[in-house]
Amino acid sequence: MPHDLDAVLNQIDQDLPDSLDRLFALLRIPSISTDPAHDGDVARAADWLVQDLESLGLSAKADQTAGHPMVVAQGGAAEGPHLLFYGHYDVQPVDPLDLWDRPPFEPEMQDTPNGKVIRARGASDDKGQMMTFIEACRAWIKVHGSLPVRLTFCLEGEEESGSPSLVPYLEANRDALQADLALICDTGLFDAQTPAVTTMLRGLLGEEIIIHGPARDLHSGSFGGAAMNPARVLARILADLHDDQGRITVPGFYDDVPEISDELRAQWDGLGFDADAFLGAVGLKHPAGETGRTALEMIWARPTCEINGMISGYTGAGFKTVLPARASAKVSFRLVGQQDPHKLRVAFRDFVQARVPDDCRVEFLEHGASPASVMETGHPAFEAARAALSQEWPKPAAFVGAGGSIPIAGYFKSILGMDSMLIGFSKDDDQIHSPNEKYDLDSYHRGIRSWARILDAVAKV
Amino acid sequence: MPHDLDAVLNQIDQDLPDSLDRLFALLRIPSISTDPAHDGDVARAADWLVQDLESLGLSAKADQTAGHPMVVAQGGAAEGPHLLFYGHYDVQPVDPLDLWDRPPFEPEMQDTPNGKVIRARGASDDKGQMMTFIEACRAWIKVHGSLPVRLTFCLEGEEESGSPSLVPYLEANRDALQADLALICDTGLFDAQTPAVTTMLRGLLGEEIIIHGPARDLHSGSFGGAAMNPARVLARILADLHDDQGRITVPGFYDDVPEISDELRAQWDGLGFDADAFLGAVGLKHPAGETGRTALEMIWARPTCEINGMISGYTGAGFKTVLPARASAKVSFRLVGQQDPHKLRVAFRDFVQARVPDDCRVEFLEHGASPASVMETGHPAFEAARAALSQEWPKPAAFVGAGGSIPIAGYFKSILGMDSMLIGFSKDDDQIHSPNEKYDLDSYHRGIRSWARILDAVAKV
Repeated sequence: MPHDLDAVLNQIDQDLPDSLDRLFALLRIPSISTDPAHDGDVARAADWLVQDLESLGLSAKADQTAGHPMVVAQGGAAEGPHLLFYGHYDVQPVDPLDLWDRPPFEPEMQDTPNGKVIRARGASDDKGQMMTFIEACRAWIKVHGSLPVRLTFCLEGEEESGSPSLVPYLEANRDALQADLALICDTGLFDAQTPAVTTMLRGLLGEEIIIHGPARDLHSGSFGGAAMNPARVLARILADLHDDQGRITVPGFYDDVPEISDELRAQWDGLGFDADAFLGAVGLKHPAGETGRTALEMIWARPTCEINGMISGYTGAGFKTVLPARASAKVSFRLVGQQDPHKLRVAFRDFVQARVPDDCRVEFLEHGASPASVMETGHPAFEAARAALSQEWPKPAAFVGAGGSIPIAGYFKSILGMDSMLIGFSKDDDQIHSPNEKYDLDSYHRGIRSWARILDAVAKV
Repeated sequence: MPHDLDAVLNQIDQDLPDSLDRLFALLRIPSISTDPAHDGDVARAADWLVQDLESLGLSAKADQTAGHPMVVAQGGAAEGPHLLFYGHYDVQPVDPLDLWDRPPFEPEMQDTPNGKVIRARGASDDKGQMMTFIEACRAWIKVHGSLPVRLTFCLEGEEESGSPSLVPYLEANRDALQADLALICDTGLFDAQTPAVTTMLRGLLGEEIIIHGPARDLHSGSFGGAAMNPARVLARILADLHDDQGRITVPGFYDDVPEISDELRAQWDGLGFDADAFLGAVGLKHPAGETGRTALEMIWARPTCEINGMISGYTGAGFKTVLPARASAKVSFRLVGQQDPHKLRVAFRDFVQARVPDDCRVEFLEHGASPASVMETGHPAFEAARAALSQEWPKPAAFVGAGGSIPIAGYFKSILGMDSMLIGFSKDDDQIHSPNEKYDLDSYHRGIRSWARILDAVAKV
């Protein structure tokens, strides 16, 4: 049966005041997942969602886990594409509270030079984003009595505290969570005018290396020159990690790094990304990665190696002529394409070991390993969603990358075997995780309309 | 008039119990110069010395300074060589007190597997050492009624707290402190059998470099690859400081580094220095300096560059994917020969600056600059002292170097225009600056006898 999309969009527009009331009600619940004092609030937010989803005619429940509940719901069409929607209803802590202009859990609509914004903890991350999808479903059901797709909801309450229960839950509920494709609403627009489908997320390999030298800190007068200095050994290792073209020198590092397609490159070139503005905002001018790559490639499509921290010897005020007994560094690699973090961990350790002289020894500590997520954008839902988004926003939607890692997309792939479409409407200035978090009314309103269009488009593929 | 040295040595042997009583009396005064609570004790130690030197028929006084008093005394022969003796009567703090086996200011003679030792704070550094010279003078005066040389004493009360008043005092009293040669008793034996005249002290150049990159710490997911990482810049600079032969690569660094003479090299080779034992004591095996140099050359006669400390980014437990805004290191150079610390500071800064990319800036902090002290051992007193020491100890005396810096020798040269003979009798295991400091009775007794012989020998040159 052909659906009337315009009627759904009209319903969304008319219902906006009420949909804001619902969002505000959810925002008033201080569901801070890291703070045991708020355990009851997190449970209350889960119950609120169960009730709200049930009001849509879905079968919903708050499933207990070892931590906070997972809200799951099923419903929608009897056949057609089956989508799994993911969002999270927990929020970041609010300290420092004195930097907030108003109480973080008393949401308010405010006028700003860039338009109206919803000010509250969780307004953007992720309650506001999550509700764009739920409100789109509500409008569909209101107009048509049902949804155009089969739908499973999976709403997490522990995203801001490291998702300890997520993997066990996915593993224990593989069958119940089966779907064709996941929708994750926890990312942003490319810019205020340009929506985005995030199709590439970099992976992460974290390592700590500790170079041990002399048995104790030595006096650099008595031993300087004769005794091996582990800080010198460490500096050599860290310096060797890049060549003068900015390429990472660990053997085999680029073996599984694909070039992006000409099509994607053309799309990215068309985005008009302003590298000067991007770097200028943090006081920099020059893209620092591999020679011949654009800044956008560097952060979305190329792997990196960064020193995240290092320490050795005396680091207080003044001076101490000590020859340190040890030196350590935390190093992380952002991974792309098919780079295997476990294989690269071994290659990195071999690289380091080969540079440790006989009089030192190296100790390694493991700090995480997750592969990149590269979505199979060949699935017709991706093109459908892009076209749908392009209808709603001033500029056409783009397939973009993301420099960071969003582990949930990896788990959906590795545990549930499905790709994810990451679509969201937050802006760079939403101040998520910071005081005075906000979500633009435009993000919320167009976000709801965007999902209505996407549901319509995906139902037809 | 020819002097009878044997009578002086006999007098020393007979007077040993009394000379120990005098040392113990001085050791009982807790003259900790860094602790204002002990200001009165430091003054008391100065007064004790004035009285003791006056009892030798010298004209002595405790000269006030902005800090603790300088004890000065004049006397001895009416003509002949004029020597300036330097020692210090202040001591290091005693904490941690619970690691001491007995009260640090209640000296005691103890039996050990290596012979009798005097146990107390200051027993070695520097009250015991200083008193070896004073007791030698006492014996000379007792036997002959006078000293065989002209003598000025300059006994400091601030050595353990950085000598803030020393340079002003020397500058204000240039004329009163004129002499042909300084004697400094604050160094050690080469080993238990082998006395030493320290003729080379390395200088020191200390620098701190701070590399500033992005305006704030960045998220390595969002910016990694595109933003310059100052820790990477710092690692490159530090790694570049040495080549693969262990040589320092700062341009012009070796310009004023002399080779040691064949004679000195032969002497050092003859010392039987056990590099394996020296490094083995701190868990190392391989001399880490320039290829082709012995370990002894590395610490006595070659310049070095050491990283004394470095820090950047996140250094706590666990991991944080931060791209740090800054990275800093403390670097010091030990200098030899005629290396000019001020010229090398400029060369080092140029070297660093040339490696700082456009998107970073470097800040430099100065942490001291003192040239090496290389004594003019052509002065016949050096040979005379070496021969005299060789008479007293089981093995012949050596001219040795010292890896560390003893600023007083540099000041005597630069302010008073005289060379110094650094002769002392401490042992590596004296635990100076640590709990349970001791001085071997053998060091004390032979030390006094050594000075008696040196006074005799130098009087004759």
